[in-house]
This record gives sequence, structure tokens and C-alpha cells, in this order.
Amino acid sequence: MKNDILLIGGGKSAGVLIEYLEGLASEYDWKISVLSNDTKLIASTSLQVHEVDVLKKGVAAKWVSNSRLVISMLPAHLHFPIAEACLEFKKHFLTASYVSPEMQSLHKTVKENALLFLNECGLDPGLDHMSAMRIIDSIKEKNGVIKGFESFTGGLISPRSDNNPWHYKLTWNPRNVVLAGQGGVAKFKQNGTYKYIPYQQLFKRTELITVPKYGRFEGYANRDSLKYGSLYQLKEIETLYRGTLRQVGFCKAWSKLVHLGMTDDSYVLNGIKGMSYRSFTNLFLAYHSTDSVEMKFQRVLGIEQDDFSIIEKMEYLGLFSEDKIPLEEGTPAQVLQDLLERKWKLESDDKDMIVMWHKFNYIIDGEEKEIQSSLVVEGTSQAQTAMAKTVGLPMGIAAKLILQGKVPETGVKIPTARSIYEPILEELSQKFSINFNEETIR
Amino acid sequence: MKNDILLIGGGKSAGVLIEYLEGLASEYDWKISVLSNDTKLIASTSLQVHEVDVLKKGVAAKWVSNSRLVISMLPAHLHFPIAEACLEFKKHFLTASYVSPEMQSLHKTVKENALLFLNECGLDPGLDHMSAMRIIDSIKEKNGVIKGFESFTGGLISPRSDNNPWHYKLTWNPRNVVLAGQGGVAKFKQNGTYKYIPYQQLFKRTELITVPKYGRFEGYANRDSLKYGSLYQLKEIETLYRGTLRQVGFCKAWSKLVHLGMTDDSYVLNGIKGMSYRSFTNLFLAYHSTDSVEMKFQRVLGIEQDDFSIIEKMEYLGLFSEDKIPLEEGTPAQVLQDLLERKWKLESDDKDMIVMWHKFNYIIDGEEKEIQSSLVVEGTSQAQTAMAKTVGLPMGIAAKLILQGKVPETGVKIPTARSIYEPILEELSQKFSINFNEETIR
Repeated sequence: MKNDILLIGGGKSAGVLIEYLEGLASEYDWKISVLSNDTKLIASTSLQVHEVDVLKKGVAAKWVSNSRLVISMLPAHLHFPIAEACLEFKKHFLTASYVSPEMQSLHKTVKENALLFLNECGLDPGLDHMSAMRIIDSIKEKNGVIKGFESFTGGLISPRSDNNPWHYKLTWNPRNVVLAGQGGVAKFKQNGTYKYIPYQQLFKRTELITVPKYGRFEGYANRDSLKYGSLYQLKEIETLYRGTLRQVGFCKAWSKLVHLGMTDDSYVLNGIKGMSYRSFTNLFLAYHSTDSVEMKFQRVLGIEQDDFSIIEKMEYLGLFSEDKIPLEEGTPAQVLQDLLERKWKLESDDKDMIVMWHKFNYIIDGEEKEIQSSLVVEGTSQAQTAMAKTVGLPMGIAAKLILQGKVPETGVKIPTARSIYEPILEELSQKFSINFNEETIR
Repeated sequence: MKNDILLIGGGKSAGVLIEYLEGLASEYDWKISVLSNDTKLIASTSLQVHEVDVLKKGVAAKWVSNSRLVISMLPAHLHFPIAEACLEFKKHFLTASYVSPEMQSLHKTVKENALLFLNECGLDPGLDHMSAMRIIDSIKEKNGVIKGFESFTGGLISPRSDNNPWHYKLTWNPRNVVLAGQGGVAKFKQNGTYKYIPYQQLFKRTELITVPKYGRFEGYANRDSLKYGSLYQLKEIETLYRGTLRQVGFCKAWSKLVHLGMTDDSYVLNGIKGMSYRSFTNLFLAYHSTDSVEMKFQRVLGIEQDDFSIIEKMEYLGLFSEDKIPLEEGTPAQVLQDLLERKWKLESDDKDMIVMWHKFNYIIDGEEKEIQSSLVVEGTSQAQTAMAKTVGLPMGIAAKLILQGKVPETGVKIPTARSIYEPILEELSQKFSINFNEETIR
């Protein structure tokens, strides 16, 4: 069977993406095939979903060879064999994942074959590139010189559904939430000086960010901000800082868990079967013959007796409770993740919220200027979460543009070219009311 | 040429070891060959030192096949091919290094061949095993049940040569000093409860240890104390804690460097060529338009303005100075190591000091008892450092015992058997005045 679009994989954003593509299928006379074992996806679409093991030898090749564009919603580490099949059969390829070094290694050959392998085309990475590049290009057109770029994104809970003291729920991959910041030192540049934040300080060195109409958030640094200097061609940049947003107060409490070692995923704990969370917490506190777990917790973490902002968050998680850990074994991070998946669960009527914020400082004709740009999207239903929309729709629009032959770019790319970002941002705004709010501060 | 002893490698302890073996060579009619490219060693011994590349294919086999006992003083990761050659040609093997998993994997075959591969036969590991097992065995003989075992060792500077505010100099591998504690979480057991200390807390969770006649030291936990429960067959142990000793005040200051991220060896810094140490320090501090590096350093590390104990140590290292980093590139840990190799240099007339301390709590006839055992050794010359003596002599005595056929043990072993530790401790005491001071506290 010949397909125009072959979509592989599933996950939270696939539903929105498929709905978008399905809606255009008759207009453009597209045939769409979906390969997935995601039962949610199978139930929600009227398209035929083929339950095939795409990782089995020969399977990807068979399907890819009969398609025009392949979209992978698989976990990032599974993209590569699909990409190789796309190269073999000369098909375009689209993902929302970061470009891996092995993906990047295909660039020259992909380009020589006049193909486009477009990655990082979701929210973050994705809309962050597009919205930033639109402003960067417009400043450069006016001969402005960009000196500072700061950019923060957060996958949060809508204030309407915010009912726990952490002001946070799991709207995306829980493991990534627990391990956030452990991939390596955070590197950035501030006023011409390189800065490095190690994991043990990451959630302490936060910045307050004010998003117009939505108030204040706190941001912690992402792993490597420096690479965006070359990605966005910001040659004279002096401040380059990307990070992640949380509600105010989250990071200070989370840093306590980091300090204790509860987010460590590098070793398996001894004898946690049947252990209480109180005893789990005590594993990370020095022995004392009479002091309570609470007392030791507060002392080692330097929490004043009259400061309840941390303690109420820990009590909410039940870290001092006699409740039993339901796992047979696990690392500290696994025990914590299991707990958070229950305590920070997104309920069926909960709405999530995406917040993205950029700040550009630049100079035109000797004058210092500043633009801030922000995007806030709230979820509208369990299927139409803010996360699903802001990942799925940019991918859907990109797919349409590629099939229409409207993207002249070739090679392994991310959406920093105007031919890609302009129509995507335009359609998001016109058809889906996903609008960036740009303000000239100075 | 037939050898009784083949010694491979060099390093600080090889001189003492060779001197010991040479001294016995005529009495026992030993032929000793040394393979090394260590120029210090070559100059200091009257034995012929063969400068051969033992890692080259076939070289080890040729030399090993003509020997009775092979001693490796090579870096730990290079032992395995030598051990394999020893197995092939059925020779005994001796090292001062920890038993690696691959070394352990040879145990059955080594035993079947009635060979002894004796490892961990220096100071720590080495004398710690021997001195602990002597007391453990004696308690068990009296039907005592051991409930607690704590053991700390430190390679320090003699008070006579202590002339810097850290009270520390580099008497052994500088890289290991900088990376200490980074191998994984510290695991131990205290009063029946497992305890875990992550790296970011390791140098804060110290204990004060009083060594009779030498005063107080501070100790931080070693990586895995738990394994000693089975190594020493301490089945009913409730407290099991091994650690490293430093002079009081060292760890609190070192933990500040850890907290800032200066001991990180996982990434290369940008643009350190020609950078001052002041700017290096500033890489790890948040940007501020007016505050000095000193001010930011004190604030982020929670150092009170009237507490000079930390600041004087940092000033001694020159971390706020305009001196230039002499490296072209490096990780934070490499920059720090290079600096420490100059600031904590062992001068030619400096004397080092080894301190080892054990505490045993046990029950006999329902009565709680406690024994403490301690060893302090000071260096006597540049060649006869405390470290060289306490590593080299136990190895030398072990070599003698093996050649004399006095060790019935076979397989891959550490010196926990009485047939090994008793004669070694005895000779160290009688001939070299290396004595453990045992005190019954209760």
C-alpha cells in the first residue's frame, strides 16, 4: 500500500498530530498509515493502526519504502534505524526529538539526496527555535546586534488545576522530571563570562521570570545553553541562558531532595521491600539515637523551624509517613518517581499549561533595546493537553509543508529557517490561537 | 634467566619493597628481576632494572614463565594481563590493589592450580584487613559477637611538616585526592540502619575520631563499607563504617570546592588559556554587576563574615588571585589538581604520616565491650615515607612467606587469613616497629 504519510509510534502528542493530519487527508488526497502499539492511540483514531514491531528486521524498510514522508514519534533513541531506512528509500523524515550525533552524521548524505530530515519540531525543542528565530531574524534585518538571549520553557499545571503545595503535576515523562539536570553541568554565558552550575546547585541558582498576565515563575538552567550561539548564529552574544520554568517555590524544595540524594539513580537501595517512606527518608539522614526524622531532616537541610514552605511539600509527598514503599527494589530515584506518579498525578479533569518566555537584548544605532516574547497555552481536554497541542500541531503543519513541497531546506535540520518557522507560527496563530505575545520593553 | 621474584612496575612504594627483598636475597638465595621504566627506581637499587614494555605482546609471558612469584606494582588497571600470564605459567601473583571483578573471576582456576593470587596487601587495602582480622578473630575465639566495626585510614602530613592552613600535602596520587568520593554513593550501616551519603554531602557528614596520643582527626565515609560485612564475616554487625581521615577543618573547606563544582572532571572548561584563578573561581559563582568574587564566594557558600577558617585556605591556594592558570585546557578537576600539586607539594624534607584507627564493639556473655586499635607511622626520609613503608613492607613480607611455602591459602585472596596476617603483623612489629596500639575501652 502506498502512503503519503507513515507515522510510527505513539505517546501523548500523537493524538493531536493524527487528528490534524486526518482533517486534511481528503482535501490533499493523502493516504496515512500509522504503526503503533499504543492502545490509547488505536482507540482514538479512525485511521487504521497497524500493530507491527517496527524494530524487527525488514519491517521498517517495507513500510518506509512505500511512503513519501515518515514521522517518528518513537522514543528518541529509536529514531536512527528509521532514519537509515528513510535514507535508503529516499524519503523525508520528521521528529520532535533533539538531533543526536548519529542523526547529525547523516547530514551530508541526506542533503546530497535532496531530502529533509527535520528534527526538534515540537514544543521544546521546536516552538522555542521557531519563535526565537523569528525575532532574531527581524532584529538582524534591521541591522541590530543581539547581545543577550534568555529563554525559558515549562510544562506546568494550569492554575485552575493547581491543588497541591508543589504547584506541579506530571504532565510529561516522570522519569525525566526526577532525573532533570543530571545529564551534566549546566553551561551558559552571562555578560561575557562563562558560568557553570553543577547538579548540586542547579535548583538553588534559580532566576525569577515575570510572564506578562501570568505572573512570576522560577527558572533553572538547562544543560548546555552555549550551543545556541552557533545554532541561532548569535556571534556577538554576551548573555546566553536557557532554562526550565517551575512555579515559584518548587525548586527550593526539590533541591532539598537532590541534596539528600533521593534523586540518585546510580545504585540500588538495600532492603526497601516493606520499608516505610519515613525509613526511606531516614536512609539519607545521619544517625541519631533520639532525634526524630523530621528534626534531622530540618537540621541537615538548614530549614528554620518557622519555615513551613518546604516541610508542607514533604509532608504532602508522605516522606515522613509510615506508608509502605510498594516496590520490591529500586534506586532512590525509582522510589521517588513511583511516589510522585501517585502524588503528582494528572487527574482526568486536570488541565496542563505550557509557558515559554524569551528575552532579547540588542543594539540598533547605538541604542540598547529589549524585546520579550511569551507564550502560554492551557490544555482544553484530556486529549487536547497544552503539551499535546504544542508538540503535535507544529509537527502536523511541518508535515503538510513538506508534502506540499514548500520547504526548500535539505539535510538534517531543525526549524530555524524562515521557510519552516514562518508558515508554522502563522498557522498556529491563525487556526489554533497559539500566539506569542511580543513586547518591546525598551 | 630464572628468577625467584619478578617485580613489575615502580612508584613510591617500590623502593622500600625492593630494599626489603634485596636484603634477604643472599640469605634465601633469591634471584630478583625488576621490569620498570621508573627512573627513580632504576637509580636507587643495585639490582638490574630491565626497561621493557611489559604490555607489549609476549613480553610478560617470557618474563613470567621464568619466575616463581610475580609482584605487580603497576597501576591497578594493568594487573590483569600479568595475572593471566601467571595463570598460564602457574606462578604466584602479588599486588597491593583492590581485587577487580575480572581478577575475582580467575579465583576458581587459580585455586584449581594450587596458586595464590594475593591482592590488597599494602596499607589500605592491606594492613587495614590484617589488623582488623587479628582482633575480629580473637573476639570470635572468645565467643564474642561483633556488633560494630568502624575503621578509618588517612595518608597525612606529619605535624612536624605541617605548615599550610589545610594541614595537608600530597603524599600519594593527586588525581585520587581531587576525585575522592566521586566513584558512587557512600554506603554504610549504623545501629542496624542502612545509610547513604551522596557526593554533595560526603565532606559535610564527617565524624570526629580521637586517636590516642595523636589527638583528633575528622573522617569521611568511604564508598562501600557494606561489603566488609561479608569480607570479614561479620554476620551480626549493626554498625559498619569505613572512612578516610583528614586533619580537622580540611573537609569543611574541601566540601566548599565540591559544592561549587571545582572537582568536576566530566567536562572541559571553555577558554581557560590565560585565565586567572580569580576568573576560574568566578566561573562557578552567579553573575553580579558589582559584588566581588570574594563576596559572592562567601555568600553562596554560607560563610559568615567573621569566619576566616575557610577563606584563609582558599587564599592560600590563590583562588582569588590574578595568577594565571598554566594549562591550555582542562576540566575543573584538572585545573584544581594542577594548582594543588604546587600548593600542597611535599617538599624534600617533609615527612608524611599514616594514621589508621579501628573501633570494635562486641558482646561477650551479655556484656558490651569495646576495643580500639590505632597505628601511626611517620616517614623517616624521602625514600622511606610512611606510605612507602606501610605499602612496601607488607608486600615484601608476603612475598617472603609465599616463597617459603608458608601460606596454605590458594585462589584469588586478600590478607584476611591468619596464616598471612599473623606473620606479617608480627614482623612489622618486631623488625620495623610498626605497631598497632590496642586499647580495651570497655
